[in-house]
Amino acid sequence: MKRIFVTALSLLLLLKIQAQTAQEIQKTESILRGMTLEEKVGQMTQVTLAVIAKGGWGNEDGSLDPAEVKKAVTDHHVGSILNTTAHALPLATWHQVISQIQDEAKKTRLKIPVIYGLDAIHGQTYTLDATLFPQNIAMAATRNPSLTAAVSKITAAELRASGVRWNFAPVLDIGRQPLWSRFAETYGEDVFIGTTMGVAAIRAYEEDGLKKTTSVASCMKHFLGYSASRTGKDRTPIYLPEIEMREYYLPQFRAAVKAGSSTIMINSSEINGVPVHASKYLLTDLLRKELKFEGLIVTDWEDIIRLHTIHRVAATPMDAVAMGVNAGIDMSMVPSDYSFYDLLIEAVKKGKVPVARINDAVRRILLLKFKTGLFDDPYPEKAAIAKFGSPSYQDVALQSAREAMTLLQNTNNTLPLSKNARVLVAGPSAQSISALNGCWSYTWQGNDERWYPAGSKTILQAIADKLGADHVITSSGKGFDHASNYDTTALKQSAQNADAIILCIGENAYAESPGNTRDLALPEKQSQLVKAAINTGKPVVLILTEGRPLFITQLAPSVKGILMAYWSGRKTAEAVADVLFGDYNPDGKLPFSYPKSMGEIVLYDRKHTEEKREILNSDVTWDGYDPLFPFGHGLSYTSFAYSDIKLSAATLKGSQPITVSVTITNTGDRQGKHTVELYSRDLYASITPCVKRLRAFEKIELKPGESKAVSFSITRADLSFVNAQLKTVTEPGEFELMIGDKKASFNYAE
Amino acid sequence: MKRIFVTALSLLLLLKIQAQTAQEIQKTESILRGMTLEEKVGQMTQVTLAVIAKGGWGNEDGSLDPAEVKKAVTDHHVGSILNTTAHALPLATWHQVISQIQDEAKKTRLKIPVIYGLDAIHGQTYTLDATLFPQNIAMAATRNPSLTAAVSKITAAELRASGVRWNFAPVLDIGRQPLWSRFAETYGEDVFIGTTMGVAAIRAYEEDGLKKTTSVASCMKHFLGYSASRTGKDRTPIYLPEIEMREYYLPQFRAAVKAGSSTIMINSSEINGVPVHASKYLLTDLLRKELKFEGLIVTDWEDIIRLHTIHRVAATPMDAVAMGVNAGIDMSMVPSDYSFYDLLIEAVKKGKVPVARINDAVRRILLLKFKTGLFDDPYPEKAAIAKFGSPSYQDVALQSAREAMTLLQNTNNTLPLSKNARVLVAGPSAQSISALNGCWSYTWQGNDERWYPAGSKTILQAIADKLGADHVITSSGKGFDHASNYDTTALKQSAQNADAIILCIGENAYAESPGNTRDLALPEKQSQLVKAAINTGKPVVLILTEGRPLFITQLAPSVKGILMAYWSGRKTAEAVADVLFGDYNPDGKLPFSYPKSMGEIVLYDRKHTEEKREILNSDVTWDGYDPLFPFGHGLSYTSFAYSDIKLSAATLKGSQPITVSVTITNTGDRQGKHTVELYSRDLYASITPCVKRLRAFEKIELKPGESKAVSFSITRADLSFVNAQLKTVTEPGEFELMIGDKKASFNYAE
Repeated sequence: MKRIFVTALSLLLLLKIQAQTAQEIQKTESILRGMTLEEKVGQMTQVTLAVIAKGGWGNEDGSLDPAEVKKAVTDHHVGSILNTTAHALPLATWHQVISQIQDEAKKTRLKIPVIYGLDAIHGQTYTLDATLFPQNIAMAATRNPSLTAAVSKITAAELRASGVRWNFAPVLDIGRQPLWSRFAETYGEDVFIGTTMGVAAIRAYEEDGLKKTTSVASCMKHFLGYSASRTGKDRTPIYLPEIEMREYYLPQFRAAVKAGSSTIMINSSEINGVPVHASKYLLTDLLRKELKFEGLIVTDWEDIIRLHTIHRVAATPMDAVAMGVNAGIDMSMVPSDYSFYDLLIEAVKKGKVPVARINDAVRRILLLKFKTGLFDDPYPEKAAIAKFGSPSYQDVALQSAREAMTLLQNTNNTLPLSKNARVLVAGPSAQSISALNGCWSYTWQGNDERWYPAGSKTILQAIADKLGADHVITSSGKGFDHASNYDTTALKQSAQNADAIILCIGENAYAESPGNTRDLALPEKQSQLVKAAINTGKPVVLILTEGRPLFITQLAPSVKGILMAYWSGRKTAEAVADVLFGDYNPDGKLPFSYPKSMGEIVLYDRKHTEEKREILNSDVTWDGYDPLFPFGHGLSYTSFAYSDIKLSAATLKGSQPITVSVTITNTGDRQGKHTVELYSRDLYASITPCVKRLRAFEKIELKPGESKAVSFSITRADLSFVNAQLKTVTEPGEFELMIGDKKASFNYAE
Repeated sequence: MKRIFVTALSLLLLLKIQAQTAQEIQKTESILRGMTLEEKVGQMTQVTLAVIAKGGWGNEDGSLDPAEVKKAVTDHHVGSILNTTAHALPLATWHQVISQIQDEAKKTRLKIPVIYGLDAIHGQTYTLDATLFPQNIAMAATRNPSLTAAVSKITAAELRASGVRWNFAPVLDIGRQPLWSRFAETYGEDVFIGTTMGVAAIRAYEEDGLKKTTSVASCMKHFLGYSASRTGKDRTPIYLPEIEMREYYLPQFRAAVKAGSSTIMINSSEINGVPVHASKYLLTDLLRKELKFEGLIVTDWEDIIRLHTIHRVAATPMDAVAMGVNAGIDMSMVPSDYSFYDLLIEAVKKGKVPVARINDAVRRILLLKFKTGLFDDPYPEKAAIAKFGSPSYQDVALQSAREAMTLLQNTNNTLPLSKNARVLVAGPSAQSISALNGCWSYTWQGNDERWYPAGSKTILQAIADKLGADHVITSSGKGFDHASNYDTTALKQSAQNADAIILCIGENAYAESPGNTRDLALPEKQSQLVKAAINTGKPVVLILTEGRPLFITQLAPSVKGILMAYWSGRKTAEAVADVLFGDYNPDGKLPFSYPKSMGEIVLYDRKHTEEKREILNSDVTWDGYDPLFPFGHGLSYTSFAYSDIKLSAATLKGSQPITVSVTITNTGDRQGKHTVELYSRDLYASITPCVKRLRAFEKIELKPGESKAVSFSITRADLSFVNAQLKTVTEPGEFELMIGDKKASFNYAE
């Protein structure tokens, strides 16, 4: 009787899960009832490929050790496997890997398929020849959610073609700490952009239904506030008052849950002294109850045992396991051994973890396996494989890279350069592929150029292909760290015969903790190189290939052009060349405030106390928000003019929308795309209001002389903020709207 | 009937106020009953001296405009005046200023004296020839609370001698953000040191009773969390989860209230979006109710109107006034006009501020005036005046500066230098007085050398006085910014005849917002100077005169000695010379972690996630806590050895103390002082435990070969932390204690 009641409750709960059929729910319950504790705990266990690969981490060819496969899948009933070993594998190898795993699963008592997960964060990272796209920070610069959708569709297709149906993406962390080594994985400092782009990615991954070979399960990450490390080091303490958490770090997860994301990964750090993996408040009260997330909660790398070994909130390894699972973890990315499996079994037997919590977790795991069609056919699917490497994918990569390019400076319209010019292309990124792609590119760190596809171009090659080799000089060598890249004498020598110097500087690829840095100053060797280039007297154009802003404050005034190229993936070099020589009119906009120095990190949505003002009774001016280049900055080869803003009403009443219209005219002589951004300002509020907040944007394209009207519908919800009682409210009073150089005011009345 | 009841309640409340006689309480109530609203609001109004001085801010001679004095004291009933005008005034001028004000007060209907307040933060800032002591950051380096008491006694005496009975000190903000321009005013990054030193200062100011001419009312500032600005700019937003606020920013205020501080000044910034001046939670619920503070709450500069003009939480100026007073403000440092007076009267009349709140504020103001003896005699007191400028004050200044000196590096025991050596003394601080004193030194900014006392020595002078002028060479000019200070050619030239180079670098004086900085890098000109000195091949000793750490990471390995001199007041130069040439054996210990770069700001009481460790599956090591010089670092010319730690028990039970003993031996050949520091570590806790926390320290002096036993009594309260429920708790389990290189463990059981 009791069991029937519980099952009925579960059914009610599960009916809420998107796209899950009643039949699958029944099957899940049926399987669950027949499972041993060991089988259940095994499902909650996720190990890394190195555990079953011949030779472990050093494995180069994807060959599996059958005994280890059996040990994992049959003996320990593992529910999931992730990751690659040394580097990306060929498509066919993935098919073998997945097939061997699923073959083993078929031999088990319950024949539950294994779900494989990968970090395909800017294209399918770990399949050779898969198409890599711009990192999220660069996608944010495009201000084009349809491009984000397009690249996500291709990522899903190439993952699925590899036999993988679970993507650990998108990153929904907001990039408000530029020191952070994963800054490039974020959509920048603004919550609205992060939410818009994140939701676009999730819809693209999942909207066709996860049984379709065009889809993968998405994974919102990293819940919650992971990007907000105080010192900027990865996985280090976060201090986040709840009002700030709810204003800047929660909205995108709320929207992503509503958009139907199937899974979520947890922040490896602590917030206010509590590791998030141990926080019942965040995982159960906030995520499950308040956000009503019904999907799977997976840990990040090794984060359960670290509750004991590093965070030290659990006095024993078993306490760590119990703490994490009781907080709400469904699956543990253990990932290198079976300690979690052993300890959780023991913890359940000792009554430290209720069986109900285990059942809840396993239910969600099985449902995900049904949802992704693994119970129907767990093997790589022919329909998916057929689409791998479609030539059209490269077109999307090129268009994304082009729209990401952000022209930060163009003194005296030095750019575009003439195609008849002779140019010196130098600097560490001139002949590097990895510095154009960044983290998670065929290897974890992305810095091993052996694995990049043939046909990947360097900036030097792309420019030579455009101008002809006889118009291009270089003093640099192959690879970011080549000694000649920093040879200022060779640079000066080579510059003598050049009309302009294109200096490619920035960062080579890195990922996660190895990207921790002491300093965002441009490295001294690169700084010397730029100075040498400036000293030649030739016009210097800087190409910045970097995952976070490196300071160029003292150098910027002396160069003619600065093009922010980010890490824009496979077609970065082509896009750079297109912009430099006028084949593409740049339209990217900075998704973050480019700071002048570490002592000058102020974000665009600053408070009025952070505004420029004179200091009373002194001759000093406090600079306030004064970045080298502000959020939203980005030049074009044409110019755009804004009409006055028209409002559909002078007062915003209750929940009714107000329509905000403006007409934009291309007043220059080149066709171009342009993003129209609407900002708002609450003049007075119970919480100190921001100077401005981005509320809407739309990208349009205009021929020379052409005009287009753009209108936005704004409701009180768009103007809301989190108040001292942690409620999201819109307070009555006056608001200002800013679009381009135009401004309009209205009152909101309840 | 109702009035009697309210009065009785008030009496009960007031009886709690320390050292206040029943008679004074009765008199206060009697005065209060007879006051008009205008007279009450006037008492709550504090204006700056410029308002009543002839010529306003430009006033040079302290002469007052009788009409403006009348306007303030008689017409607007102002209760308090603060500050100076252009610079410090002679003692006699202060007597005139105070007397004229009190003369005017005697003419008013109620004859309530005016209370004058000044920022005597490291000695009496604004009286010419008063003795200036080391800034708090340097006092913290002494680890000597009895010295803090001694300098505070002298500060009180010289303030009182000037006719002033209210000191806006001590700063209790904890210096955990080295970018902050008021870092030098803090006792550094540790809460225990901040609390110990802050309490020592408050006791010194007030323990004799405020009627005594040796005392002044202290002012705890700035309540709460003022030092924690996220971007490091003064008066900009703070984001502070309450658990962190209670762990790191509240304890020293709790202890200071218990120590009997009479007044408190409020943080000008916002915390979590709420300006502290508008926070009823912080001012009334936390400060009045939880901390049971019964003294006077005063705003900081102009902070009421800024609720409207800058914070924008008040839609009108009157709302700003009502918001601040209703939150709990008793007195408004308006300070340049009578807007607060006019608006508060209007606000009360309109019912926006209850009369009871006004009475509560005025009652506290009147009681402070009784407590400080102003009702008995409001004029400068002969007994106080007689002690001004006592020669013994200079001895305390010298001893404080000596004990502050922190020897950070001494390669191959280069120091002390021989007195027979010929030394080049150069760098911007070599012939600067202001760079040895810092903020609040005879002027607000401290950077106008005209006002320093005759007899103040530069480092060059102090060294020449010690060695004889013929042993000292310089290439620098007078004043921090003299062009020749940065002349590397002159430096090299001068170095030819020198045995060593003493290079004095760092920061000139600045205070508050004008000290906002973009960068803590050593300025390029100074960096070039150090490189030039290194390139001479002569041994280089750096003297750092600075209020916060400037980065010298690349330079440090190439110099022989580094002496942190801070801004150590009047006798800085003499102390530097004494240490350099062995007349004083240095014993200062860094009160903060000296960082390598802005991307490396990790504090000593870090979490284990911030510890050095290898990153799994990569060849990268995460450096963790890895400052250039750690918290507590400081070298001696002798050496000290620690015995094993002895514990009085293996288990700490309940509220019983445990005695921790250790014997320290001077194993070198020089007498020296040494601070024994006891750190603890909670091995596992419900909030991620710190790697270490300072729990006790004691400074001892040892002759060569001498040993001394030191013991500390530790209770569970010393080991406590704030948990997730915001309660201060000590959780049972294992603890480690660390003293010097020794370690001991024990268990705590409830």
